Amino acid sequence: MKPVKLAILGLGTVGGGAVRLLQDNAAEIARRTGHEIQITHVGSRRPRPDLALDGVKLSNDLLDIVKQDDVDIVVEVIGGTTLAHDVVMTAIKHGKHVVTANKALLAEYGNEIFQAAEAAGVYVAFEAAVAGGIPIIKVLREGLSANRIDWLAGIINGTGNFILTEMREKGRAFADVLAEAQALGYAEADPTFDVEGIDAAHKLTLLASLAFGIPLQFEKVYTEGITKLTAEDVTYAEELGYRIKHLGIAKRTDAGFELRVHPTLIPEHRLIANVNGVKNAVLVHSNAVGPTLYYGI
Amino acid sequence: MKPVKLAILGLGTVGGGAVRLLQDNAAEIARRTGHEIQITHVGSRRPRPDLALDGVKLSNDLLDIVKQDDVDIVVEVIGGTTLAHDVVMTAIKHGKHVVTANKALLAEYGNEIFQAAEAAGVYVAFEAAVAGGIPIIKVLREGLSANRIDWLAGIINGTGNFILTEMREKGRAFADVLAEAQALGYAEADPTFDVEGIDAAHKLTLLASLAFGIPLQFEKVYTEGITKLTAEDVTYAEELGYRIKHLGIAKRTDAGFELRVHPTLIPEHRLIANVNGVKNAVLVHSNAVGPTLYYGI
Repeated sequence: MKPVKLAILGLGTVGGGAVRLLQDNAAEIARRTGHEIQITHVGSRRPRPDLALDGVKLSNDLLDIVKQDDVDIVVEVIGGTTLAHDVVMTAIKHGKHVVTANKALLAEYGNEIFQAAEAAGVYVAFEAAVAGGIPIIKVLREGLSANRIDWLAGIINGTGNFILTEMREKGRAFADVLAEAQALGYAEADPTFDVEGIDAAHKLTLLASLAFGIPLQFEKVYTEGITKLTAEDVTYAEELGYRIKHLGIAKRTDAGFELRVHPTLIPEHRLIANVNGVKNAVLVHSNAVGPTLYYGI
Repeated sequence: MKPVKLAILGLGTVGGGAVRLLQDNAAEIARRTGHEIQITHVGSRRPRPDLALDGVKLSNDLLDIVKQDDVDIVVEVIGGTTLAHDVVMTAIKHGKHVVTANKALLAEYGNEIFQAAEAAGVYVAFEAAVAGGIPIIKVLREGLSANRIDWLAGIINGTGNFILTEMREKGRAFADVLAEAQALGYAEADPTFDVEGIDAAHKLTLLASLAFGIPLQFEKVYTEGITKLTAEDVTYAEELGYRIKHLGIAKRTDAGFELRVHPTLIPEHRLIANVNGVKNAVLVHSNAVGPTLYYGI
């Protein structure tokens, strides 16, 4: 069988990790999927001598890589929404399948991207864009496809959940934990996307679109962060038997679809109230199977 | 697009429920899968006048139904391992895809069935055979396919978990709760399969085969039930900070693969220790994404 040929664009933490994973688990992947994976191109401005890339073509001209004949699938892990947008659209127009973990790109330009992909007859796969290692996209797209999904609620930003967990377990202040999260590399240097709920809103947009079969509508998400929460809020909640979690909630209502991201009080005996640290979890309510929950990182 | 034609064999609780679900969610299923589903045949010894089956052919000759031209997929929900075996093998030989929730059949005859299906070029789908509404089969088969799975542990028998939960929360005795579970319809009249771990061993056999790519080996599962647990065991465990859960565990070891079902002490802060009542959950440890957990009924 011919190997599937991959171009990996971006060799940062995610791209480099993907290269290592594809190499380390090559035999397992071939056995489980029936396909051998071959990395033919990597796109990066900086070389990564720590990676084993013998025989792989390296270039920083991403728009050129995605046109090459020896590329079946383009893996976009450069991030951002300008060059990433051009790269993905060009790849699609040249008949390449696309894999991306870029939730900002999809939440903002997904309607255009998915339309172009359908016209070109290629796939745009984005399992890692929401709740990283949890296969929640496949669950919503395929696993629950005999169900009408009524609502879902998720802890879909690990940094925010780490901060809330530390505040509760150790009585620490928001700013203090945020500084530690940045030092640990959980939070970006500019933490706005995480702590103001924008990252969660991007992800919720994708989940809602899959769950309800509606277009992506990032601009309609009510978005409230966790920056105004104090150690006292967390303590009072606990005294009343609740945990505060930063949830993304998507709901089917009589008036249409409701999408919101905000801090939420959850009774402490609920499973999702006990998802701590940088972990994620998505609770899905469907009309046939009832509640199911997906947990991981 | 031509509808997909289904024969549903067995009109008990599961078969009747499947008919209703396919009818009630027909529009949602067509939208989400791109296929209209048409039930052309049902196989049952008793009529079910409560179901809307106008235009559907009813017969009790199951081996005849599976040979009909207007059947693409056979849904086997009669249970047992004798007639079900003949029906499934005959369906496969006549080029029909098969859907079954029959874990006993697959755990005992799966190697033969899957081999025949591969030779005939048809699918045998069995998502509902393990952890009912949780799409754990798809997760193991596809969602985690870039991972090497190191071990998994699951609460995969709802009746057993209901009994253990009641024993812990209300200090009740095993026999007392079992009688209630039978009255509520959670437990079969003959509860041996549930409380002696045989049902869990059937399911673990399927999970291990998918997770590790190994043949089904039901006969190798170490199987211990929950019938010897006393209210005191449960109380002592709690005093020490543990919960007792009846787990199915499959592990990759240096000496091969270990499959076992038995009561297990789990620290009470673990998510899986807090899965209560008739709920199921499967925890999967993979080498790339680490621990993920799938919860539902």
